[in-house]
Amino acid sequence: MRIVVLAGGIGGARFLRGLKQAVEGGEITVVGNTGDDIHLFGLKVCPDLDTVMYTLGGGIHEEQGWGRAGESFSIKEEMKAYGVGPEWFGLGDKDFATHIVRTQMLGAGYPLSAVTEALCARWQPGVRLIPMSDDRVETHVLTEIDGERKAVHFQEYWVKHHATVPALAIIPVGAETATPAPGVLEAIAEADVILLPPSNPVVSVGTILAVPGIRQAVVAAQAPVIGLSPIIGGAPVRGMADKVLAAVGVETSAAAVAGHYGSELLDGWLVDESDAGAVAEVEAAGIPCRAVPLWMTDVDASAAMAREALAFAEAVRAR
Amino acid sequence: MRIVVLAGGIGGARFLRGLKQAVEGGEITVVGNTGDDIHLFGLKVCPDLDTVMYTLGGGIHEEQGWGRAGESFSIKEEMKAYGVGPEWFGLGDKDFATHIVRTQMLGAGYPLSAVTEALCARWQPGVRLIPMSDDRVETHVLTEIDGERKAVHFQEYWVKHHATVPALAIIPVGAETATPAPGVLEAIAEADVILLPPSNPVVSVGTILAVPGIRQAVVAAQAPVIGLSPIIGGAPVRGMADKVLAAVGVETSAAAVAGHYGSELLDGWLVDESDAGAVAEVEAAGIPCRAVPLWMTDVDASAAMAREALAFAEAVRAR
Repeated sequence: MRIVVLAGGIGGARFLRGLKQAVEGGEITVVGNTGDDIHLFGLKVCPDLDTVMYTLGGGIHEEQGWGRAGESFSIKEEMKAYGVGPEWFGLGDKDFATHIVRTQMLGAGYPLSAVTEALCARWQPGVRLIPMSDDRVETHVLTEIDGERKAVHFQEYWVKHHATVPALAIIPVGAETATPAPGVLEAIAEADVILLPPSNPVVSVGTILAVPGIRQAVVAAQAPVIGLSPIIGGAPVRGMADKVLAAVGVETSAAAVAGHYGSELLDGWLVDESDAGAVAEVEAAGIPCRAVPLWMTDVDASAAMAREALAFAEAVRAR
Repeated sequence: MRIVVLAGGIGGARFLRGLKQAVEGGEITVVGNTGDDIHLFGLKVCPDLDTVMYTLGGGIHEEQGWGRAGESFSIKEEMKAYGVGPEWFGLGDKDFATHIVRTQMLGAGYPLSAVTEALCARWQPGVRLIPMSDDRVETHVLTEIDGERKAVHFQEYWVKHHATVPALAIIPVGAETATPAPGVLEAIAEADVILLPPSNPVVSVGTILAVPGIRQAVVAAQAPVIGLSPIIGGAPVRGMADKVLAAVGVETSAAAVAGHYGSELLDGWLVDESDAGAVAEVEAAGIPCRAVPLWMTDVDASAAMAREALAFAEAVRAR
């Protein structure tokens, strides 16, 4: 079975770990969000790709959900001593190595997709991880800080300000001229199932879909497209997705996110069992919906979610 | 008193620490060798400048003589895990931070001299440290490895091969078209004393003098030029200077090194007291010479050497 997953960072990575357990033997292609990418200290940092790679490759800091296990922070301290910022973005020493290797390969002329493949040769994530695009796309957020409107890098909004400043708009800078990385459209076209994990629907999955050609390919794909709600009981499972949903005028509810993706895109939508009341609303919008447990408390729980998604795909395919 | 020192790495740095103690209140300008510089992992590494900066700034690994005290090696291990070499050049995590800051500033358009000044703003070495040139100069060594002639980067010859392969020639690539960094020629012209510490006369001091204009400026300077022999009893004080001396056809002796610098350049030459027998030979070549203790066993010993050099300068000035 060929499965394509459009994934952001932590939520996507944890779902993928469950999916791998659920479909041993399946062929999983992950189209990773690169809108979170940031250039720091002259290095190219790809937080979402790395979170997927580290999580599936066994190198992730489990509790934190991002960064490396057993990490040290010598470089961060040194940077501070040199007065070189930003201080708010925490890169560990081991993590730096990844960015150094990546930056060196990019500088040598390799596209990000080839670099990601090279990094994965070490991590053996057990999936094919492809960045959504080899082109530079950077999500910026139009904020109002101290009464002044200012567009800041998504990471500045998210990590520095913890999404506590008003977000007026989400702008995936460069997305409109980006092209999908090699293999992305082919994987989508040839997929047996396409999954939207409980990643951020705006700045993760939304950014991937903003690359011209990707949304169209997903809509046109033969495969059923099944999404899992990142909203449970009116609140994000983790992170601050409610803030960026508000910025694009979408209510923080499982049903509203389904509506945001739309019936053209989704062939099925899974909401948490506590949101069973939303099933009728989602189905009324033309999207088949089921209520199942959606808390990724551990790998087994994530695997159960993945099995529900795959079973749902079979069901909608049979209709 | 304005003192200019043409310095390599460990030997130069240790001498400078003594000199600082000897001339409290003096104004010391260090023209640092950049021929050892190497690009590793996409980063610009300046071993000699850093050794001077760390040593005088209190950050050096005392026993080792290079690199940072209390260093960790997470990145090095990660690089190995990624299969990215070279493995033979040991960069610690703290040290990496210096190279990251330097590379970022160079990438932003600052010349190496400005970058060095910025790094020194943190380290406060108590001297003005200027690279010999802002231009890229890289010492290469023509070797014979497994029967094949091959030019390798000096660091590869020195660190990887430990100078155990034959060195047929020393080539300061780029030196002939390099220009002295801003301030170098002015400092030399305005100096009261110019010192050549017991650094490697070929690949450290020799490379500095190979930058067009620097040797001429030292020869033309009003100030006495006093050198301290890096050879004691027919062997290098440290390192493998004998190997590179042989490559340029110079015998490994205190007298031969004096002759290599030449009476045009040197106004005085200090040999170790154990080499007192060489004094007559050096003076016969037209270079005033004294025998004094030249083992830099600790800072006090280095300071005593510096005082001897300064006293010698006064003596030759009075002639």
